[in-house]
Amino acid sequence: MASTYGTHLRVTLFGTSHGPEIGVDIDGLPAGEAVDLHELDTFLGRRRAAGRAYATRRREPDLPEFQSGLTPDGHTDGSRLHAIIRNTDTRSRDYRELADLPRPSHADFTAYAKHYPPEMMAGGGPFSGRLTAPLCIAGGIAKQILARRGVTVCAHALRIAGISDTPFDPVSVGPDDAARLEAQDFPTLSAQAGEQMQQAIAEAAAERDSVGGIVECAVTGLAPGSCGDALFDGLEGRISLAVFAIPAVKGIAFGAGFESADLRGSENNDPFRMQNGRVVTETNRHGGILGGIASGMPVLFRAAFKPTPSIFREQKTVSLSRRENATLTLTGRHDPCIVPRAVPAVEAAAAIAVLDALLAG
Amino acid sequence: MASTYGTHLRVTLFGTSHGPEIGVDIDGLPAGEAVDLHELDTFLGRRRAAGRAYATRRREPDLPEFQSGLTPDGHTDGSRLHAIIRNTDTRSRDYRELADLPRPSHADFTAYAKHYPPEMMAGGGPFSGRLTAPLCIAGGIAKQILARRGVTVCAHALRIAGISDTPFDPVSVGPDDAARLEAQDFPTLSAQAGEQMQQAIAEAAAERDSVGGIVECAVTGLAPGSCGDALFDGLEGRISLAVFAIPAVKGIAFGAGFESADLRGSENNDPFRMQNGRVVTETNRHGGILGGIASGMPVLFRAAFKPTPSIFREQKTVSLSRRENATLTLTGRHDPCIVPRAVPAVEAAAAIAVLDALLAG
Amino acid sequence: MASTYGTHLRVTLFGTSHGPEIGVDIDGLPAGEAVDLHELDTFLGRRRAAGRAYATRRREPDLPEFQSGLTPDGHTDGSRLHAIIRNTDTRSRDYRELADLPRPSHADFTAYAKHYPPEMMAGGGPFSGRLTAPLCIAGGIAKQILARRGVTVCAHALRIAGISDTPFDPVSVGPDDAARLEAQDFPTLSAQAGEQMQQAIAEAAAERDSVGGIVECAVTGLAPGSCGDALFDGLEGRISLAVFAIPAVKGIAFGAGFESADLRGSENNDPFRMQNGRVVTETNRHGGILGGIASGMPVLFRAAFKPTPSIFREQKTVSLSRRENATLTLTGRHDPCIVPRAVPAVEAAAAIAVLDALLAG
Amino acid sequence: MASTYGTHLRVTLFGTSHGPEIGVDIDGLPAGEAVDLHELDTFLGRRRAAGRAYATRRREPDLPEFQSGLTPDGHTDGSRLHAIIRNTDTRSRDYRELADLPRPSHADFTAYAKHYPPEMMAGGGPFSGRLTAPLCIAGGIAKQILARRGVTVCAHALRIAGISDTPFDPVSVGPDDAARLEAQDFPTLSAQAGEQMQQAIAEAAAERDSVGGIVECAVTGLAPGSCGDALFDGLEGRISLAVFAIPAVKGIAFGAGFESADLRGSENNDPFRMQNGRVVTETNRHGGILGGIASGMPVLFRAAFKPTPSIFREQKTVSLSRRENATLTLTGRHDPCIVPRAVPAVEAAAAIAVLDALLAG
Repeated sequence: MASTYGTHLRVTLFGTSHGPEIGVDIDGLPAGEAVDLHELDTFLGRRRAAGRAYATRRREPDLPEFQSGLTPDGHTDGSRLHAIIRNTDTRSRDYRELADLPRPSHADFTAYAKHYPPEMMAGGGPFSGRLTAPLCIAGGIAKQILARRGVTVCAHALRIAGISDTPFDPVSVGPDDAARLEAQDFPTLSAQAGEQMQQAIAEAAAERDSVGGIVECAVTGLAPGSCGDALFDGLEGRISLAVFAIPAVKGIAFGAGFESADLRGSENNDPFRMQNGRVVTETNRHGGILGGIASGMPVLFRAAFKPTPSIFREQKTVSLSRRENATLTLTGRHDPCIVPRAVPAVEAAAAIAVLDALLAG
Repeated sequence: MASTYGTHLRVTLFGTSHGPEIGVDIDGLPAGEAVDLHELDTFLGRRRAAGRAYATRRREPDLPEFQSGLTPDGHTDGSRLHAIIRNTDTRSRDYRELADLPRPSHADFTAYAKHYPPEMMAGGGPFSGRLTAPLCIAGGIAKQILARRGVTVCAHALRIAGISDTPFDPVSVGPDDAARLEAQDFPTLSAQAGEQMQQAIAEAAAERDSVGGIVECAVTGLAPGSCGDALFDGLEGRISLAVFAIPAVKGIAFGAGFESADLRGSENNDPFRMQNGRVVTETNRHGGILGGIASGMPVLFRAAFKPTPSIFREQKTVSLSRRENATLTLTGRHDPCIVPRAVPAVEAAAAIAVLDALLAG
Repeated sequence: MASTYGTHLRVTLFGTSHGPEIGVDIDGLPAGEAVDLHELDTFLGRRRAAGRAYATRRREPDLPEFQSGLTPDGHTDGSRLHAIIRNTDTRSRDYRELADLPRPSHADFTAYAKHYPPEMMAGGGPFSGRLTAPLCIAGGIAKQILARRGVTVCAHALRIAGISDTPFDPVSVGPDDAARLEAQDFPTLSAQAGEQMQQAIAEAAAERDSVGGIVECAVTGLAPGSCGDALFDGLEGRISLAVFAIPAVKGIAFGAGFESADLRGSENNDPFRMQNGRVVTETNRHGGILGGIASGMPVLFRAAFKPTPSIFREQKTVSLSRRENATLTLTGRHDPCIVPRAVPAVEAAAAIAVLDALLAG
Repeated sequence: MASTYGTHLRVTLFGTSHGPEIGVDIDGLPAGEAVDLHELDTFLGRRRAAGRAYATRRREPDLPEFQSGLTPDGHTDGSRLHAIIRNTDTRSRDYRELADLPRPSHADFTAYAKHYPPEMMAGGGPFSGRLTAPLCIAGGIAKQILARRGVTVCAHALRIAGISDTPFDPVSVGPDDAARLEAQDFPTLSAQAGEQMQQAIAEAAAERDSVGGIVECAVTGLAPGSCGDALFDGLEGRISLAVFAIPAVKGIAFGAGFESADLRGSENNDPFRMQNGRVVTETNRHGGILGGIASGMPVLFRAAFKPTPSIFREQKTVSLSRRENATLTLTGRHDPCIVPRAVPAVEAAAAIAVLDALLAG
């Protein structure tokens, strides 16, 4: 179930939610890059979010252990970086029932249909959101390397439960937005929108229900032509492959995305002009990518997250052992909304995809 | 600029719009599979669409030549299939100006910024929609192999210029829809919508403008658990990587997609039930994919196409040689809407991705 | 420094001799295969060989810990198998001097020239023979899977210090030889040759010197056409790539190998004939491989091992820090002959290469 | 049957001896490298060797056509280089009988056992020595790129029919030897040895028989640490994988190779010393590779070629259709010794492997 992304930077996620450990192997990191473990931990903390109203009550420190790839003084040594997070609080008994009664719109049923032995997959396996923790280890390291090359990756909760945050400015988004977002407890540009979102999440939770949302992500500072290419090497496809690894993502759109489908060319095209000796575009409906290649404008995309499928109302399902209709009422612990914790995971996926594309040249 | 997709079925597109030939290499095809060249040509004809109002006036037969991989009686022989299409009508003079004045929202500028020597990329190179012809060769062969395994791939123009076609029924879409669409000149389920779309395209062309749209695609007949997996091996990400190889795609969404972001879990979840001894879902907002794996329900996705960037109005751009602002008024030939011709390309991309995933097991 | 072999079975070795652990990741194992840990430990014991006269005095249990990939009842579960061996007895102080005074004909100098930071590579790093332990974990599992498919892999010390063992019979070698060799303390077919070899090793050690040798390996039970292919997919090249991963291997030859270079075609060709309805060859100078593909006869090859470069006599070298000539007199512990312990490593490399080729079909 | 070598430089050979064309795809070539087509043709001419006594009577110009990858002025453009050689003189009728009566020690039988449809493989398919022509196109280009980086690749016929040429000096071999060999009609350092070899080949041919031999190859000018790595990334294994793609190679040995197996460490180790500020070794039994990494000394290896299996005497074989013993007396045209024409193929394989390793860094 290990799963690998990338050609020049190769990121392999392994382990399962209820096994002894999860982790990540990273091959292809340039040697001699500093890895600031404190900064990395701050980044992982944005995903962990323990104790917040919207997060699962499962508490795990999720501290990574680096077993190879770093020198004693914290630089990459050119070898495979191997990092693990031990699973210390697994409660697998919560999941026994799921082996027979698959949760609607969750991976229980398809994991059962595909894997051997099917009962081991119940309750998450590699399909759990916990695997975004090692994704964030890789992404956090990639973000640090990108930052030293002038590239910033930042994301926010653009929409939750129908409530919208202020969108990024497509032309001027950059390090200031990143700094502003890192200072927030809740990942929105508008503090008011963030409060409304948290209230809506709490209401859904009180009704034993869940909500979805949209994450918007920007990658700024990429030089024109610095990464991406035509066809299967395009940045849109490469970023999508990384982002869809995050559970619950059901759609992705770059720049004006689905809205551009209803525009005319004369409305959608972004005029070029010279600015301080550089070629820029006046608007950025193309989302920083033309022909699969970075145009030099901010790379911008939005990822749609479905509501958490694990809700605590009675639901219709089937018994896989008895091959008959059944009902399921979940107990246990599940986030009523995974969007806030997914924000750093989206940054991580984007950072990995972009660093891989930059190393490919 | 050759570009390769896949791990078990490996599809490599090569050539440029204005070189002597374009083509495709396919490795990993099972041996002994019949390839019906007449059926393949019918499929390629749906992309060619010469003479239709909405198509470019450039006329090329686009007949593939198979140089290896097929036995004399038309079966795959287990070796690499190498097929080319000769470029017979290139008129590269149309493109000389573009080497200096990049078209807004086209790949001219980024190809210039990335490739050596930059002037050779002008006017398309590997970024041209012509590369969807070899994509369709591979996809047409994949569709035939899938059909023998009970898997149907079909797509239609769900939306063009703001006009909507009848969407697929998410639960019952299947071979009947495919047959119905193959009988149409214009790829819509509703003939009336198709006529309105063609009229809107003609109006935009008359105004020297272009329009975009949305293609909806269904893959039906996949057994639960038959393909896909967690994380980077999920069907959503794998299909996206293939679909974003089609120029002008800016977004993709599976099942309820971006709409599911505004739903609650109780609204979005698809209940399971038994039907004739098989596990099915009552609704299909999950788009046939759970945890990255085929659920057995139709795989459903929508791809957003921006309007063709090549329009015939004066546009603001820059002169790359003089490093100053400039204007550009295109002449030449470009589709005012590529969506109808993109429909088989989306089918091709989906067929390649799904066959690769099935072969991976 | 992680290093990966294979396309369908992918074996990645990681860790260094003097870090906290070494190990192996195996992707692509078929699911549901029993792994007999007792049998595996017996195989690893042949490599460990602690306490024998010819082995290093370093004692490590080298027990693998399986952290993923196995079900509780010991079957492969289709996921990545991750196994580690903890380094408990590292004594890195022995190696500090080597960081400046590279041992002649050892990897100290080239590791220094290539890697960052150079001093971390001293004394082995990934170049140590200890990495053959995780190679043997992967190979031992591959051997068990092959055995269930009727394929036997066995090897012996054909030559050490100029003393020759009885070679395998090229036509009839098979499971009987494997059983006979597994019953030996020292891996020779002739007990007398084994005793003479051990005596010669002891003599070299007494003289603070080392000796080399040749390992002969047979893979029997492969059906004609079952694995391998032309060009870069030939079994000779694939097996060589795996075998040269074992430190100290300097040559490999299949069948009659270098001797066939002096023969005429009429002497070297192996006539075909029918035997019990099967096509066989009367002789086997082709070593079971024709055109890179298994012929159905035993696959036979010989691997040449140079003498251990770590000897305890004064040797001429250079000081890398002072850039001047120097001398080096090693202390510490090193096998005076690694050939006996390399025998299972050669089996492991062959088993991995052949299983990968069989899975590729 | 296309077959790919390499990770950073990827060389794919395709086509069959008796199809319309053979060729090579090269991905990963640095952009902007000059390709001297005249020099390349001279290199290919060394393989072609039409009209020489030892060569097949089949005459083909074997001129490559470059269909992509080169700019009009002969530089690599960063895209996939696609080159083909048309097969103009195929005479497939010569091979019909071989579909039923496989030649001893040739690939006829194993190709039949493995491929679909079996009869298409008769008489060579991808197993023919003709595939060394596209190998030499890739290798000839790699040699030119290496030469601009100060790296020389040269090889000679060290041994044919039991007659030995002067071996390379392991320490001082270099560009002078390359120049000397390129001036020869027959690829030996000693003109006398070359004449004797040609006479021995003629004698074998007169007796309807064939002979084998050994090619020695040197790669000089590699900086210490510039390429190769531990384990599966070692230069020995990487070079072997490329060299075994040449039909008839049955063994390979680096430096002292199989002879080092009989030496003691004190005899085999190569002392380091400083020379003009660089670390060198006094002798070069290690063949320029330590720990899989280039040491800075000449990389030296020998490849053993079996005698051509296609001889014109009556041989014992089987009828595959009748499943019974049979005899075969070949007619047609086959080199009585492929070693002279294999010399540039060995250079090509080495150049590809070394350039790939250099690009991997």
